Amino acid sequence: MGNCCNSVVNFFGRQKNTNVRVSLPAVCFVWQIAMIVLFGVFIRYDEESDAHWVEFKQENNITSDIENDFYFRYPSFQDVHVMIFVGFGFLMTFLKRYSFGGVGFNFLIASFGLQWALLMQGWFHSLDPATGKIYIVNWRNAGDFCCAGSLIAYGALLGKVSPVQLMVVTLFGITLFAVEEYIILDLLHCKDAGGSMVIHAFGGYYGLAISWVLYRPNLHQSKRLNGSVYHSDMFAMIGTLFLWMFWPSFNSAITDHGDGQHRAAINTYLALASSVLTTVAISSMSQKRGKLDMVHIQNATLAGGVAMGTAAEFMITPYGSLIVGFCTGIISTFGYLFVTPCLENSLKLQDTCGVHNLHAAPGMLGGFIGAIVAAAASESVYSKEGLINTFDFEGEFANRSPGTQGGFQAAGVCVAIAFGLVGGAIVGFILRFPIWGDPADDNCFDDEVYWEVPEEEETIPPVLEYNNHMIHKHQDM
Amino acid sequence: MGNCCNSVVNFFGRQKNTNVRVSLPAVCFVWQIAMIVLFGVFIRYDEESDAHWVEFKQENNITSDIENDFYFRYPSFQDVHVMIFVGFGFLMTFLKRYSFGGVGFNFLIASFGLQWALLMQGWFHSLDPATGKIYIVNWRNAGDFCCAGSLIAYGALLGKVSPVQLMVVTLFGITLFAVEEYIILDLLHCKDAGGSMVIHAFGGYYGLAISWVLYRPNLHQSKRLNGSVYHSDMFAMIGTLFLWMFWPSFNSAITDHGDGQHRAAINTYLALASSVLTTVAISSMSQKRGKLDMVHIQNATLAGGVAMGTAAEFMITPYGSLIVGFCTGIISTFGYLFVTPCLENSLKLQDTCGVHNLHAAPGMLGGFIGAIVAAAASESVYSKEGLINTFDFEGEFANRSPGTQGGFQAAGVCVAIAFGLVGGAIVGFILRFPIWGDPADDNCFDDEVYWEVPEEEETIPPVLEYNNHMIHKHQDM
Amino acid sequence: MGNCCNSVVNFFGRQKNTNVRVSLPAVCFVWQIAMIVLFGVFIRYDEESDAHWVEFKQENNITSDIENDFYFRYPSFQDVHVMIFVGFGFLMTFLKRYSFGGVGFNFLIASFGLQWALLMQGWFHSLDPATGKIYIVNWRNAGDFCCAGSLIAYGALLGKVSPVQLMVVTLFGITLFAVEEYIILDLLHCKDAGGSMVIHAFGGYYGLAISWVLYRPNLHQSKRLNGSVYHSDMFAMIGTLFLWMFWPSFNSAITDHGDGQHRAAINTYLALASSVLTTVAISSMSQKRGKLDMVHIQNATLAGGVAMGTAAEFMITPYGSLIVGFCTGIISTFGYLFVTPCLENSLKLQDTCGVHNLHAAPGMLGGFIGAIVAAAASESVYSKEGLINTFDFEGEFANRSPGTQGGFQAAGVCVAIAFGLVGGAIVGFILRFPIWGDPADDNCFDDEVYWEVPEEEETIPPVLEYNNHMIHKHQDM
Repeated sequence: MGNCCNSVVNFFGRQKNTNVRVSLPAVCFVWQIAMIVLFGVFIRYDEESDAHWVEFKQENNITSDIENDFYFRYPSFQDVHVMIFVGFGFLMTFLKRYSFGGVGFNFLIASFGLQWALLMQGWFHSLDPATGKIYIVNWRNAGDFCCAGSLIAYGALLGKVSPVQLMVVTLFGITLFAVEEYIILDLLHCKDAGGSMVIHAFGGYYGLAISWVLYRPNLHQSKRLNGSVYHSDMFAMIGTLFLWMFWPSFNSAITDHGDGQHRAAINTYLALASSVLTTVAISSMSQKRGKLDMVHIQNATLAGGVAMGTAAEFMITPYGSLIVGFCTGIISTFGYLFVTPCLENSLKLQDTCGVHNLHAAPGMLGGFIGAIVAAAASESVYSKEGLINTFDFEGEFANRSPGTQGGFQAAGVCVAIAFGLVGGAIVGFILRFPIWGDPADDNCFDDEVYWEVPEEEETIPPVLEYNNHMIHKHQDM
Repeated sequence: MGNCCNSVVNFFGRQKNTNVRVSLPAVCFVWQIAMIVLFGVFIRYDEESDAHWVEFKQENNITSDIENDFYFRYPSFQDVHVMIFVGFGFLMTFLKRYSFGGVGFNFLIASFGLQWALLMQGWFHSLDPATGKIYIVNWRNAGDFCCAGSLIAYGALLGKVSPVQLMVVTLFGITLFAVEEYIILDLLHCKDAGGSMVIHAFGGYYGLAISWVLYRPNLHQSKRLNGSVYHSDMFAMIGTLFLWMFWPSFNSAITDHGDGQHRAAINTYLALASSVLTTVAISSMSQKRGKLDMVHIQNATLAGGVAMGTAAEFMITPYGSLIVGFCTGIISTFGYLFVTPCLENSLKLQDTCGVHNLHAAPGMLGGFIGAIVAAAASESVYSKEGLINTFDFEGEFANRSPGTQGGFQAAGVCVAIAFGLVGGAIVGFILRFPIWGDPADDNCFDDEVYWEVPEEEETIPPVLEYNNHMIHKHQDM
Repeated sequence: MGNCCNSVVNFFGRQKNTNVRVSLPAVCFVWQIAMIVLFGVFIRYDEESDAHWVEFKQENNITSDIENDFYFRYPSFQDVHVMIFVGFGFLMTFLKRYSFGGVGFNFLIASFGLQWALLMQGWFHSLDPATGKIYIVNWRNAGDFCCAGSLIAYGALLGKVSPVQLMVVTLFGITLFAVEEYIILDLLHCKDAGGSMVIHAFGGYYGLAISWVLYRPNLHQSKRLNGSVYHSDMFAMIGTLFLWMFWPSFNSAITDHGDGQHRAAINTYLALASSVLTTVAISSMSQKRGKLDMVHIQNATLAGGVAMGTAAEFMITPYGSLIVGFCTGIISTFGYLFVTPCLENSLKLQDTCGVHNLHAAPGMLGGFIGAIVAAAASESVYSKEGLINTFDFEGEFANRSPGTQGGFQAAGVCVAIAFGLVGGAIVGFILRFPIWGDPADDNCFDDEVYWEVPEEEETIPPVLEYNNHMIHKHQDM
């Protein structure tokens, strides 16, 4: 059938060359070898994962191995790991014939991305000038976190690009991420625990800009495959639920030990719960007879977690978290109902998974919510030490006031969006070169292009059953 | 097809109004706003999640952030979170055309339920009389735990009620839960770590009583949809396995730090393993040629965890745990074979998921096992301090003997069952008002009623393949 | 259809008796009762899970409950638990009509195996000679870990054996495992944190030897069912991803507290990421038009974790881990392309899941990598104390040099393989007795044999739809 399918395309003379037999292995091999070389030059164990830990412990009067950062971070890290590979991966399996590509290419680019992210983040954040080495990996920097932006961008491109293009999107995406994160977190000294700005707003707009440059005027020719079937919607729900459940770990994974991590988890937990109810409400209101739409349930329910990314570690109060979830559930569902069709028709922007509604808009919103909550911080609410702790008002930032912090937070949102839009436009133009093996407009959303797909599910069993019945009849005779 | 389906019902004049376009959004919005208001009035961060933690640590001579309850509880909490949303959700996807409803409505009601549970439990357990506030959330009280009873009740009602009715079931279910839990744990001073009594016996009988009141004499008209298909059984196995794997976390989530949490996890782990073998044995014995029935594997294998809910933190011994699992695996499988059909035919009680066999009966049994093990406790086995610690024989209960404790434990089981039956009957009558949008008898177990269901899975690909073959033939000519 | 299917087989006179209605329940009951008796005689709580913990803490000056091993181990243990039941279980659901058997029998044998493993391991490692008791369960010994070898063996036998045979495979597999593990870890004093040798090499060759003895010359008669369908490949990806994500926990679960556990997790994480890229590269190169093969993605991506099993806790360096993953990804994918067909044609060895390529070969390789890395260890890299700590150069082994350690590690690999091959051959011959209820050659890979399979998925909905259309037409008239 694979052949046959390609022949069809030939027959109508619209063939694009989707052969990636040289380019995909070449990219994988060369880039992986580059990773090995760069890791060899730059990356070493840090003191908590080095065998010198025994001595380090004695020198620093650490009484128990449980003080090793591993025990503070590893459970949260594993939750984030599940979000990246099962969460994002399965969320993108909703298309009837692009489930292999959804989960498989996500697997590929996240595996590359986490290595590249360890390097990029290391260069910007933890390069030891004395030795020229990066000491990894306390799990707060682990690469998964930094991949998320590129995986979000994949959501906008799902079904319309080749795996080689996705590798390029990831390479540039993580590079841009590391730069904008350095500007936002280090230079502007913003706080962004769960990455509303640096991950979601950036990743969302990055993907949208790429998709806008790669506009396909005849994508309607693939319309028959641009939808779900009953069981592909169920697979997508696996992704949704693992994202939803572990989002409190995502937003709390890199916050301060103790109350910061505790509070970030609670706030996210509440915002997500609230999002579910308003998503259901709007979805039901928008359809005839109040029927729910799986697209909304799979996506908009997560908007509360996105919007809580910056403010999660602040004292936003439990009811404040509920309000954030309440509003973003509504906004995100409205986005799926009205904004996505509008983007496609007016702006010529095709956004397969609706990342605008799930990541870009709620991420931007979350950044501004964070700015407001930061500006409203006070010693009476946080305590003197708590305020310093939460916002790291130390060193050169010791005299910054909460109000100023709020201003810088708002500036951070703009930086993230600018990086997303400009970076995405440039990467989009790079991807328009006719060398990447992307599919033709009538060949999108189809696993046949890049995967050996097994024979149709239902051809064999019915025949079998038929034969059995026939034989059975013979026996009865 | 959605329209068409509704028209059919019209045609035969059996139409019930399943339009929830007003009621479902109204319930979601109003209740969520109520949550926000009540959280605003009552709920505050506790000292471990408040920014004052830095000071609290100093005042209480806490030397390390790792002593924050977050690090004791969060990994177990996340496991419970997975059980509630993926475990319960996917366990209910086994029906061929009610998978959206199974996992989707579970998502909705658990998201509402956990908020309401934080309030209800807070009022009863942790309202500070001085300030009139509830200080959440150390993770032992997190709302997930308290939702479980209502999700169990959903199992009995699966496919036969509207989402609005489920919200009502959850609202009352959690209210009743909080009251009976207060009576059993605080007034009777019972121990019930994994909730054999307060969650499973209560939740099971609550669901059964509702289902009994809502008896549908013509449910056989939906019989064609009241069964599984191959892949829906596979989705349900995802639910089963995540429940089974994480049950040790469920039963140990709120026990004492240290040995209590450790022991509860071990006992549950062993009981569950034992259940699997006896479930397989009875399932195989009961069918022609020894074939296994997926219904048994999906459900009865979990009975050991239910029955270990009360005794998990006691010194029941490892082999005692195996015996509990051994017996409940048998009992639960027999329940599916004989009790469920009998309930339907004789008692007019339709129990879609068989919650009687998985929750009600094993929960009741687990309560009594707990009573016996408690009554048999002695200082020689527990040590003097261990006995006090395990049963909290402190304050006004300082002089209670293990024998007395056993008696109170048994009384607790009866309270839980009584609350389930009486509460369920009342809620059932409320749900009989013709305003809730529930489906007609011939329209049950069908996602078409409340969901936008995608086109049939197999209509498109075969056609595609056919066309391809045709074109291919043309080419060959 | 079940009947019908059996009748067919009768009709052609090739019937083997697959009735397990007596044997399966008998094995389950008798063995479970034996477990209860043996647990009663031998197994007790250890001091960390016993109610005497309160006293133990005081006597040993333990200041905090967080020092209970539960908090060091339980999160990793739960990850391993998921790997065993969901990971291995779903990985084996890829066949179009053996998904019930894949996940269901895995559930059964792992549940039995973990109990038997606690006993066997206890006898060899932690039997207290004074009391004659085994004090479980600090989670490092938990039975899951020791089951893995037998589950790997199941991969080679998938679809060709009865559940009773699988129970026998597990019983002997765990017995052999405990003996070889005792020889390798205790007598030879090897280190094998993630079990490259004791689990993967042993389990892989054990399964291959059994499969070789049970060679089925006419297996091609079941060829129609020996393949995947679209959605069964998706279910298998659930298994793949949970194995892949949690492998860092597997390799670090029983290492030393602190840096050992931390380093093992990092090394495994990196090796796995690297495997993914080279697997994709080779898979793409090997197929026409560069299309990817799901078999490779589902399996060879995991090879990096297997090969890192021994060396994970050593100072192999981050780039060393990437190199290990790089090479094993290539080797494993080549295995699927060339070795598996060759084994079947030349060696008459049918390996359903390709355990040779995923476990046997990478495990052996991992063992030798471990030997080399151990031999290269030095005080300058590990620090004096770190070297002692990492290799346990204490007691009678205090004077062993790293070079000698390397030699013993290599010897360990050979012991593991020898145990696998010889043990597997013997067990294979036992399984050839015609009493075990295994299927005929034309009846393999079929759930109909041991499961009540629901009616075909697509028979009902289309009819429904058809009827609806008809009625609708009538209405229109």
